Amino acid sequence: MTIRALVFDVFGTLVDWRSGVAREVQRLLAAQAPGLDAGAFADAWRARYQPSMETVRSGARAFVDLDTLHAESLPDVLAQFGIADVSEAVQAELVQAWHRLDAWPEVPAALARLRKTLLLAPNSNGPVRLMVDLARRNGLVFDAILGAGYSRDYKPKPALYRDAVAAFGFAPEETMMVAAHSSDLAAAASHGLATAHIARLNEHGPAGGETGPTVPVTYAAADLADLADQLGCR
Amino acid sequence: MTIRALVFDVFGTLVDWRSGVAREVQRLLAAQAPGLDAGAFADAWRARYQPSMETVRSGARAFVDLDTLHAESLPDVLAQFGIADVSEAVQAELVQAWHRLDAWPEVPAALARLRKTLLLAPNSNGPVRLMVDLARRNGLVFDAILGAGYSRDYKPKPALYRDAVAAFGFAPEETMMVAAHSSDLAAAASHGLATAHIARLNEHGPAGGETGPTVPVTYAAADLADLADQLGCR
Repeated sequence: MTIRALVFDVFGTLVDWRSGVAREVQRLLAAQAPGLDAGAFADAWRARYQPSMETVRSGARAFVDLDTLHAESLPDVLAQFGIADVSEAVQAELVQAWHRLDAWPEVPAALARLRKTLLLAPNSNGPVRLMVDLARRNGLVFDAILGAGYSRDYKPKPALYRDAVAAFGFAPEETMMVAAHSSDLAAAASHGLATAHIARLNEHGPAGGETGPTVPVTYAAADLADLADQLGCR
Repeated sequence: MTIRALVFDVFGTLVDWRSGVAREVQRLLAAQAPGLDAGAFADAWRARYQPSMETVRSGARAFVDLDTLHAESLPDVLAQFGIADVSEAVQAELVQAWHRLDAWPEVPAALARLRKTLLLAPNSNGPVRLMVDLARRNGLVFDAILGAGYSRDYKPKPALYRDAVAAFGFAPEETMMVAAHSSDLAAAASHGLATAHIARLNEHGPAGGETGPTVPVTYAAADLADLADQLGCR
């Protein structure tokens, strides 16, 4: 089967969330929290990500977007680092940090190569506007924005993978999920999608990242340019 | 209020559905139906559009996409024109005619101008893949694909306008619905969106099109380039 569409995990796979959040945290909290380990702050915030989405995935609450979940988990993170009296305006700016992330260096050019012959969409847990902001910031062009905004649920719920396949209208095996996380790829594969793993050795800063897939995948790539090479996209 | 995002009607407003469908009908049915008035065939097919969507809007049936509605209404149109024995393969190709429409001539360049400062998305009754196919065919770049695929309902149901505003996250009055149809703009305005009317004098071929808005609008434009001029987008 030929691959005809790529749907992408975004946080970690296309963009460097840890450095970007740490940069904004440093900028916005330096005065109040001198000596703050901004990378550790980003890690602590990200650690709330899965538990916060689980409240939606489980059906315990109606769908709310990731901006809302980030805003809800922020006070806990601030308290964990002993940072008090952060204004609502600064908290809102901190939530926007997740809209201001830089792509991994090879991504813009590699995505442009892939787009010459394939349809492309993010299939992320971030909402439409967050995806649009990341795309505009980094010069990424997608054909559509799929994912949590489109499916009103969070990966790895089946709707995210099934809706992504249906939206582009190819067979599941012609639609490839691209991610730096084996769990995402395992879920995609369970719905028949092809899968590509991207090794993001620095996703978690000093804590590293997945050096390769821990599950069977269709492609394993060092970065997005390597994937484009393997797919024959010049 | 400044306009920050534009959401577009597509059939008639950005693309010339009548000429495109007639061209494909002519190509696919000429052998079986010599002398067929392909424009009249396109009109007859389009006449089934609102009644077919109404079955979804009313709640009488679960959401199905416009490809499905086009496929369902096609046999009636063929019968109306006395065309028998059209294979399933040709019928499927005819449904694809709606994916192969040309943009009105000024649209690609005007859209590129608008995109320099505004976020853009179709807010059409067509599904994601249909929008993607039209965008790729005509070199249009959008930031997201909103509309029936995103909202699982059809204009003028409130969800289409509310979801479009929420997806980009600006105030309703910062989000502008752009359409060649006053009814669409009236519905958008009822949800607080700004509105722009585009005069498509040839939408219905010899039967013309709306020469101007029949409802109050924020902008009335001769075409999309005129709208870009009025918005100061160079």
